[in-house]
Amino acid sequence: MIVNSLLDTDFYKFTMGQVIFRNYQDVSVMSRFQCRTPGVPLAQVINLDELDAELTHVTKLRLNNSELHYLRGTNEYGARMFDEDYLQFLRDLQLPKYFLSFVGDNIKLDFVGPWSKVTYWETFALSIINELYYRTLMSKGKRFFQETLEASAICNLSDKVETLRACPGLTFTDFGTRRRFSRGWQDYIVGTLAEEMPEQFKGTSNVALAMKYGLTPMGTSAHEMFMVGAGIAPQTDEGIRESHNDTLRVWWKQYGQGLSVALTDTFGSGFFFEDFSRSQAQSWKGLRHDSGDPLQFGRKAIDFYRSHGVDPKDKMIVFSDGLSPKLMVYLYRKLNEEINVTFGWGTNLTNDFGFDPLSLVVKPVEANGNGLVKLSDNLNKAVGTKEDIARYKRIFRHNHEERAVCIS
Amino acid sequence: MIVNSLLDTDFYKFTMGQVIFRNYQDVSVMSRFQCRTPGVPLAQVINLDELDAELTHVTKLRLNNSELHYLRGTNEYGARMFDEDYLQFLRDLQLPKYFLSFVGDNIKLDFVGPWSKVTYWETFALSIINELYYRTLMSKGKRFFQETLEASAICNLSDKVETLRACPGLTFTDFGTRRRFSRGWQDYIVGTLAEEMPEQFKGTSNVALAMKYGLTPMGTSAHEMFMVGAGIAPQTDEGIRESHNDTLRVWWKQYGQGLSVALTDTFGSGFFFEDFSRSQAQSWKGLRHDSGDPLQFGRKAIDFYRSHGVDPKDKMIVFSDGLSPKLMVYLYRKLNEEINVTFGWGTNLTNDFGFDPLSLVVKPVEANGNGLVKLSDNLNKAVGTKEDIARYKRIFRHNHEERAVCIS
Repeated sequence: MIVNSLLDTDFYKFTMGQVIFRNYQDVSVMSRFQCRTPGVPLAQVINLDELDAELTHVTKLRLNNSELHYLRGTNEYGARMFDEDYLQFLRDLQLPKYFLSFVGDNIKLDFVGPWSKVTYWETFALSIINELYYRTLMSKGKRFFQETLEASAICNLSDKVETLRACPGLTFTDFGTRRRFSRGWQDYIVGTLAEEMPEQFKGTSNVALAMKYGLTPMGTSAHEMFMVGAGIAPQTDEGIRESHNDTLRVWWKQYGQGLSVALTDTFGSGFFFEDFSRSQAQSWKGLRHDSGDPLQFGRKAIDFYRSHGVDPKDKMIVFSDGLSPKLMVYLYRKLNEEINVTFGWGTNLTNDFGFDPLSLVVKPVEANGNGLVKLSDNLNKAVGTKEDIARYKRIFRHNHEERAVCIS
Repeated sequence: MIVNSLLDTDFYKFTMGQVIFRNYQDVSVMSRFQCRTPGVPLAQVINLDELDAELTHVTKLRLNNSELHYLRGTNEYGARMFDEDYLQFLRDLQLPKYFLSFVGDNIKLDFVGPWSKVTYWETFALSIINELYYRTLMSKGKRFFQETLEASAICNLSDKVETLRACPGLTFTDFGTRRRFSRGWQDYIVGTLAEEMPEQFKGTSNVALAMKYGLTPMGTSAHEMFMVGAGIAPQTDEGIRESHNDTLRVWWKQYGQGLSVALTDTFGSGFFFEDFSRSQAQSWKGLRHDSGDPLQFGRKAIDFYRSHGVDPKDKMIVFSDGLSPKLMVYLYRKLNEEINVTFGWGTNLTNDFGFDPLSLVVKPVEANGNGLVKLSDNLNKAVGTKEDIARYKRIFRHNHEERAVCIS
C-alpha cells in the first residue's frame, strides 16, 4: 500500500494538530479534494477500487510506540513541544470516514468531522492520488520506457545536486510528500540528499523519512489554520479580518519563537504586511512565501522589516512556491545578502520524471457551517465560493489580480 | 566472475576458428594485449590477483551441450556451417595458458600456443580487463555517483534508440562485447534493443546473448586472419603481398557467399581495392570498413564496384569503426541510396557511462616465429615492429598517413 505509517505525512500536520487539539476541539469541518490542473481526467486514469482500498488502508493505521516516542522526543523547536495529552490523543487517533465517488472525469472526495481528526487526511489523500495517477501513466509504457523515466529522474536529481552545490550557502528542505511521484522515490531522494549534501539539505517535512534518516522534521503551519480561523470567527467583516492575527497569536502562545514562521498569503500578502504588527515583526523568526512573485515578495519583506526598525538580516524567508534549482539560486543570490532565505522544495524535487506535475489540494471548505476562503497572491490558488471570495477580497483589501499556472 | 561461458565471445571467433582448425592446425602464434589509449595506468587501476583469477576462471570453462547444440544449429549463413569435427574440437577446447605480469603501469599479457586455441583468448581478455577497469573507476565514487552514471547510461541508450528510430531504414548490430562496460550492461542493452527496435537491430556478435535472446549471431572475420596469413606465407615481398588474397580464397572456400564480407583495411584499403578482383567484387556480398574516413571509403567502394561493372546497390558495406548514432545516420543518408550500408556498433553502444573509453586490443604479434603486421587506414591502429611496419608499407604501397585517436 502507498501509505503505511501515520508519520508518512508532513510535520506541520502535527504542529497544527496540537494547536487544533488544544484550542478547536469543537470545530467541525468539511475538507475537499480538488485538482487545480485543468483538463486532467483523473477518474479515467485512476481506478476507483484501488483508490478506495488505499484510503481504507489509511483508516486502519495507528501510530505505533516507536513513532510516538519519536514525536515525544522531538525537541528541534523547543523542548518537549508535543504535550502528553496530545500524544495520547495521537495514540488513539483513527482517521475518520471519507466520502469518495467519481463524478464524470473528476474524483469527488470529501472528509467530514471534527477538525482535530479530519486535518490529517490532507497529505495522505494527496500522496495516494498522486502516486496512483503516475503509476498508471508509467504502466502505459513498456519496460524500457519506464526504466528510461526512472533513469532520467536520477539524472535530474544529480543535476539538481550539482546546481545547488555550486551555491554552497543555499539551504533547503524537502516539502514534496504530497506531490511525490511515489513513496519509494521520495525516500530515495531524501536518503540521497542526506548523504550527498548534508550541509545544504536541512531536513524533510516528511516525519517518517526524518525519523528514518535522522533528519530534522520541518514545517510550521498551513493556510488551513487561517481559513478555519476565519470561518469560526464572528462572521462580521471585522471578525473575519481580525481572525488572521488571532490565529497568529494562538500559534505563538503554543510554540513561541520555535515555530514562528508566518505564512503570509492566505488572504493576500498585502493584508499580511498591514496586519503583522511591529512587535510580531520583531519577535517572529520569519515569513513563508507561497504564491505571487517571489522576488517582489522578498523586496517587500525587506522593506517591511526596515520600516519597523528590524534588521532583515536577523529574519528569514522560507520560499515554497513553484521552486526549481535555477529559481532557488536566483532568489538566494538576489536576496540573501539582505535577508536570510531558505527553501521548502516540493513538486519539482519529488516529481521530476518527465510527466507534467499535477496541482492537487485538499482544503477545508467549511467550518461549523461557514464557507471557508483562501485568496493567496495567485487567484488560481483561491479556494471558496465566488461570493465568499468576493467578500474576502473586499475585507482584506486584496488586490493581487495575478493568475499564474499552479505548478505546486 | 566476468566470463561464465565460452559463448560469451564474438561469433567471428568461431567462424575464424573453424577456418583455422581446418587449415592452420600447425601454426603457432603469440598474441599480445595492448592498450592503445595513451596515459592510462592500467596496472595501477586493476588488481593483479583479480585479473589473474578472472583469466584462470576462463581456462576452466568448457562449452556445454546446449551451447554446442546452438552452434551446430546455426544456419543463418548456410546450412550446418559448423562441421562436426570442428564441433568436437570445440567440445574439448580448453583455453591455453596465459602469461600475465604488471610492468610499471602496464599490463603485460601474452598468449602462446597453437593458433587454433590461442585465438579464443582475444575477446575474453579484453572484456575482462575492460570490466575490471571500469568497476574500479565506479567503486571510487559514492553510491549516488554510481547510480547517476547507471541512470545516465540508460538515458544515453534511450537517446540512441530515439535517434535511430528517426531513421527507420538504418540497421545495425551489437559489436560491443570486447569494449562493454560490463557483461550485465551489454546484456541489458541487447535485450532492450531486441524489444524496442526489432526491425532495425539485426543481431549481436555476442553468441551467448544471441542464444539468450533468439537473435542472429553476427560476424565474419578479423585482421588476425590476414596478419597470420601473411606471417606464415613465404616471407618474400611477393609471398606476403599474395597472402592477402590467399586468405580471402580460403575463407570463400569454407563459407562461400554466406560469410563473404571482406575486411578491407588490414594492409590499407588502397591495396585492398587494387587486389580484390573483378570476380571477387562480383561474388562477395560486401566489405567491412574498420579505419580511416568512412564516407571517403564509401565513395571509393561505390566507384570500385562501378569500375568492375557491379551495381553497388547489390553490395553492402559494414561500418564498424568509432560509430555514434549521429555518424551512423550521416553515413546512412549519404550512402545508402547508392550502396547498402549497415553498422557493427561497438564501444559507444556498450560503454557510454560517461567515462572515457579505452582502446584495448589483443592481436597476434608472431606466427611460426615471424613478426606480424597490421597497417590499417589509421596508423595509430598499426601493429608490428617499426621495421616490419615499414616493410609492409612498402610491400602494400600503403599511403594512408592518417593518425586518428583510437576510440574503438
